[in-house]
Amino acid sequence: MAGRFITLEGGEGVGKSTQLKALAEAIATRGHEVVITREPGGSEGAEAIRTLLMQGGEEKWSARAEALLFGAGRADHVEKLIRPALKRGDWVLCDRFIDSSRAYQGGAGGLSDNDVMTLHQISSEGLLPDRTLVLTLPDSEAARRATARDGANVDRFGAKNAAYHQRVVQSFERFAKADPARFRLIDAGGIASDVTTRLIIAIEDLL
Amino acid sequence: MAGRFITLEGGEGVGKSTQLKALAEAIATRGHEVVITREPGGSEGAEAIRTLLMQGGEEKWSARAEALLFGAGRADHVEKLIRPALKRGDWVLCDRFIDSSRAYQGGAGGLSDNDVMTLHQISSEGLLPDRTLVLTLPDSEAARRATARDGANVDRFGAKNAAYHQRVVQSFERFAKADPARFRLIDAGGIASDVTTRLIIAIEDLL
Repeated sequence: MAGRFITLEGGEGVGKSTQLKALAEAIATRGHEVVITREPGGSEGAEAIRTLLMQGGEEKWSARAEALLFGAGRADHVEKLIRPALKRGDWVLCDRFIDSSRAYQGGAGGLSDNDVMTLHQISSEGLLPDRTLVLTLPDSEAARRATARDGANVDRFGAKNAAYHQRVVQSFERFAKADPARFRLIDAGGIASDVTTRLIIAIEDLL
Repeated sequence: MAGRFITLEGGEGVGKSTQLKALAEAIATRGHEVVITREPGGSEGAEAIRTLLMQGGEEKWSARAEALLFGAGRADHVEKLIRPALKRGDWVLCDRFIDSSRAYQGGAGGLSDNDVMTLHQISSEGLLPDRTLVLTLPDSEAARRATARDGANVDRFGAKNAAYHQRVVQSFERFAKADPARFRLIDAGGIASDVTTRLIIAIEDLL
């Protein structure tokens, strides 16, 4: 049976990493091998690039430089981890992927979606997920959760202003509306196990 | 008076860094402010990327990941150092630039020239040098000089095989033939001051 590639997306504080683990367990229970990974990072080289991207002041890199660094990390991650896993028939669950590049460097950072997708074509030969689950929360609730999680330890992206984060969230919603076959918008409010149930329903047709 | 952007290119061991300094002195003598820089690197962020690119085994990065990392560094370098210097009216002399990406990741690494130039458009809005000086030496002489310079301290690119380096050199010669207005092929053989004289003659029309 062919492997499936699922990505979780959303703004800061929507609970992606918690949900990724719960979803992975649910898929494993159905008898699939599951690989959990993340971006930026996910392979040795890409994790080194992640450090460059996340540390330092928020103005350390322009959106252009960021987009190319994400693309470089993604090239490594796709070649060394994601494609081999899919080829083995595993399910790959990834915390952020190309749609974060489109939302952060594109919608919020000012690069065109066309430039971001061109970089993706060159870095990863345009690999797209079979399903992209966008976790959504009201802005105030997401901000509250992000603050509770990070305290004063915000990374470069967490340090960006509210207008930037609002553009990120709006971008995800726009992508989802434009491609309903690949995307599902998932309400991330309420108790965690209910959110997991919504996620499982949203990939049921692929199982 | 507008600044000029000059790049030095060539394979390993052709003497680019020595000649860059000599050429900078000659241009400064004519009353111009001169900024010497290099790629990969040249700005704080790009130097951090340089470390990622040069260290490690030669198979650490694919040509795709390399091209994107060079593009990310170039975005930072162009935005923070090269464009501001040119805007002030300075001359910028750069040890390697886009044509090294075309020769190493393209001609020798297997990426298409079109992909490399597309990355350049996104990273640096397609900034091209006013003149590109390609230093040439017979392969055997270049290899001898590179070995004398580096000893056992070769970086990831120095560690690549002879066929790879031959494709690099052939790529530079092909670019020069295709765009004689921007490129000059310069014989890097003989004593250093003679080579410098050849370089000065090759930019005389810009002074």
